Amino acid sequence: MPEITPVAHIYTLFPTKFGIPRQSGLVDTISKIVFTSPFRSPDAIRGIEGYSHLWLIWEFSENKEKSASLTVRPPRLGGNARMGVFATRSPFRPNNLGLSCVEIERTDYDCTEAPVIYVKGADILDGTPIFDIKPYLPYTDAHPDAESGFSGDVFSNCLEVIIPGDIINEAKPSDIPVIKEILSQDPRPHYQNDPERIYSFEFSRYRIKFRVSESILTVVQINSL
Amino acid sequence: MPEITPVAHIYTLFPTKFGIPRQSGLVDTISKIVFTSPFRSPDAIRGIEGYSHLWLIWEFSENKEKSASLTVRPPRLGGNARMGVFATRSPFRPNNLGLSCVEIERTDYDCTEAPVIYVKGADILDGTPIFDIKPYLPYTDAHPDAESGFSGDVFSNCLEVIIPGDIINEAKPSDIPVIKEILSQDPRPHYQNDPERIYSFEFSRYRIKFRVSESILTVVQINSL
Repeated sequence: MPEITPVAHIYTLFPTKFGIPRQSGLVDTISKIVFTSPFRSPDAIRGIEGYSHLWLIWEFSENKEKSASLTVRPPRLGGNARMGVFATRSPFRPNNLGLSCVEIERTDYDCTEAPVIYVKGADILDGTPIFDIKPYLPYTDAHPDAESGFSGDVFSNCLEVIIPGDIINEAKPSDIPVIKEILSQDPRPHYQNDPERIYSFEFSRYRIKFRVSESILTVVQINSL
Repeated sequence: MPEITPVAHIYTLFPTKFGIPRQSGLVDTISKIVFTSPFRSPDAIRGIEGYSHLWLIWEFSENKEKSASLTVRPPRLGGNARMGVFATRSPFRPNNLGLSCVEIERTDYDCTEAPVIYVKGADILDGTPIFDIKPYLPYTDAHPDAESGFSGDVFSNCLEVIIPGDIINEAKPSDIPVIKEILSQDPRPHYQNDPERIYSFEFSRYRIKFRVSESILTVVQINSL
């Protein structure tokens, strides 16, 4: 059986699984791709600036065991219905391979870890190993009219996010929009309907606690880590 | 380092590397995905009919050695210019991972190898191992306005294909359109300008020989294998 080895790692603002956007491109945070030896060379990415988007094939590296289950419970279905693992993008899958489309923000050939690619929209845990990077080719990869099954419109069940005035000052003003964006996509693991329950997740330098009642999410605490 | 194991194999009409379309979706041939144990179960694909397209992550299995080169010579650039391997979809890449989008034609739950998924547009060698199958989600995967760098418009340098009357009868009339389509995309390994040279490739049950002069490709022989 083939062994695969990381060609790079990606450094993101998501230190824990909880709170990572459910797909790529949903939140515009910037991540950094740093190559491993022997791929840490400008030659390996020569010409990449001609593209706007990249595919990353990466490892769900927190899943130490390969999943043996043929079915998973997609959060979008409320976490109760079971679907086939190959009919979902679930992280719990046979070879632990993830696939994400990210937008190239810029390349840096001058820093100590050069070349580095900064990308936008990665839905990936901080420090994740990358197995391959490929340019996005719209003529073969873009199918805007494809049917998206039960995944449906990801934006249709967004939450309204409230951050009270005394709490909002705990975060840098420039970080607030992305925090709101992540929260609006409902980072709860499964749909749960307990308005008293307090959820906690980490993003960038913050630990953020919140409650959800119906379709309204209220932040109750922001701590700097 | 993680080991990955095939979850399925794909059976296509392309018995050799030469002549395979350069990307998925360019030729509408039908291929068949057959699962390996323990994934050969209707449970593993439950719900997949809700999607129109799938991602396949597969192995460039003819490349026994992992490529050590950081650069490749894309056929689209005439085979002379070198580009970074991560700026191309070249088959010669670090972990030999391929990525293709295919369209679901139908599923079959009744045959001996069931469940089987028939897909359209695979640019993959017959018998190739598949490491993962994921549904295509247009809201995160479709970026029709992405910039496609030097790959440009794949259809801009199509060849005109001529199959003389006595030769065209050697193939089933229903196979002619797809043979023409494959040939029009110029299956020559690199751009070469030798109008006398005869190229040969296999497709489905045929061995097809042809010549290319300027932008005109002339078929000189079709044999049934």
